[in-house]
Amino acid sequence: LSYRLRRELIDCTCRQVAGRVPVLVGITDTAYAESVDLAEKAKEAGAQAAVVSSPYYFAAAQTELLDYLEHLVAELPLPVFLYNAPAYTRHSFEPDTVRRAAQIPNVIGLKDSSCNMKYFHSLQTVLSDREDFTLLVGPEELMAEAVLLGGHGGMCGGANIYPQLYVDLYKAARAGNLEEVHRLQKTVMEISTTVYQIGRHDSSYLKGLKCAVSLMGICGDFMAEPFARFGSAERERVRQHLLAAGLLVPSHC
Amino acid sequence: LSYRLRRELIDCTCRQVAGRVPVLVGITDTAYAESVDLAEKAKEAGAQAAVVSSPYYFAAAQTELLDYLEHLVAELPLPVFLYNAPAYTRHSFEPDTVRRAAQIPNVIGLKDSSCNMKYFHSLQTVLSDREDFTLLVGPEELMAEAVLLGGHGGMCGGANIYPQLYVDLYKAARAGNLEEVHRLQKTVMEISTTVYQIGRHDSSYLKGLKCAVSLMGICGDFMAEPFARFGSAERERVRQHLLAAGLLVPSHC
Repeated sequence: LSYRLRRELIDCTCRQVAGRVPVLVGITDTAYAESVDLAEKAKEAGAQAAVVSSPYYFAAAQTELLDYLEHLVAELPLPVFLYNAPAYTRHSFEPDTVRRAAQIPNVIGLKDSSCNMKYFHSLQTVLSDREDFTLLVGPEELMAEAVLLGGHGGMCGGANIYPQLYVDLYKAARAGNLEEVHRLQKTVMEISTTVYQIGRHDSSYLKGLKCAVSLMGICGDFMAEPFARFGSAERERVRQHLLAAGLLVPSHC
Repeated sequence: LSYRLRRELIDCTCRQVAGRVPVLVGITDTAYAESVDLAEKAKEAGAQAAVVSSPYYFAAAQTELLDYLEHLVAELPLPVFLYNAPAYTRHSFEPDTVRRAAQIPNVIGLKDSSCNMKYFHSLQTVLSDREDFTLLVGPEELMAEAVLLGGHGGMCGGANIYPQLYVDLYKAARAGNLEEVHRLQKTVMEISTTVYQIGRHDSSYLKGLKCAVSLMGICGDFMAEPFARFGSAERERVRQHLLAAGLLVPSHC
């Protein structure tokens, strides 16, 4: 998205949320100055934290990532969550890098989207003396086990479709109510293996999610280039999956 | 390892185990005939099942993997576990491939070493009507959550060092005793982040494990080429980690 649009989205989101839940704003960019600018915009709009992953394109070493964080975070007006997303950035913040980054003032947590829970547990281990450092998991399919094993929560894309499901799942995992976890996880996986897996493109998750929220009347399904929204055949499949999962009432269709 | 040595190891293992626990024998090979031969040897030695991943080296499509399994399994005298190990073979058995493979008579389960629990949960979802199909997880760090979320167990490399730990962890997870799971998982991660992470080579897990069992007097630390056993400096670090974890009594040292 263009910087102008990203800035507008920050404003729009904070206005819509109106303080009901914290807003965390992704400021990752290959341009250092734009990251700083987006964080300032986020602060001004009333967001609670900035989220930053490694800059992508060129490969960076762990020491370079740590230096980058030290320099960048010092300039940001908001607390910072690290975002570990090797599938997108090609870098992972190694556990020892995270342990050191957690010592930078204002770095308060990390969201891990690696899908690798062995990595997640390694973070828990190297940060075992840092109960104040928040460890969240990205893929919604892994939120329950992350919380069951002592993680602090998740940032679930599917919560755009069905927020209550993920709130209930979080609460069940926190309470150690395994029966309820199993029941809710089944629905999480039902969405994951249907709505997110239409077609063979790697972007199927994003397109399925966008299509679902548009079918539910929450927002449009516009996708930024190079991506295109689902056509009518795929849209109909998403609609059928949502109906089957009880996420769409027939009147919406 | 040479075929001769692999055949000898099958004999030796089955003799040592003497029926106390099931023996599952890895028969994966790039040579189809050798896989069949190893399975026959395993049957003869008294093993309970054969474990087979995709042949490595050339890339195979999912349909080719499925055909391969249909042809191979029909020739094997033992029940078969699939082994999903993309880090080693470069192939993953996609969930739909596993669903189809599970319909081949004698394919009774799968061990997943992908470290990707999203994948594991997808298998649980596509096989939800197949409670007779056993789903095990490979990395010991993920066994607890796999079992908590309804998986059937794990094949834990660390059980070579400390079998009771993994038995206790399995039982705690099965019983939904989260407090006990947290306590035991801490030790699992302590081993994982120390003994298995000496040096920067990808083989550090294997070398650390081999070195540990040799320090404990269980067997030697010989490594097949191209790998080499740890030198005395690394060996001393493993010894210190084992002492710290209470896995080595000073008399052993």
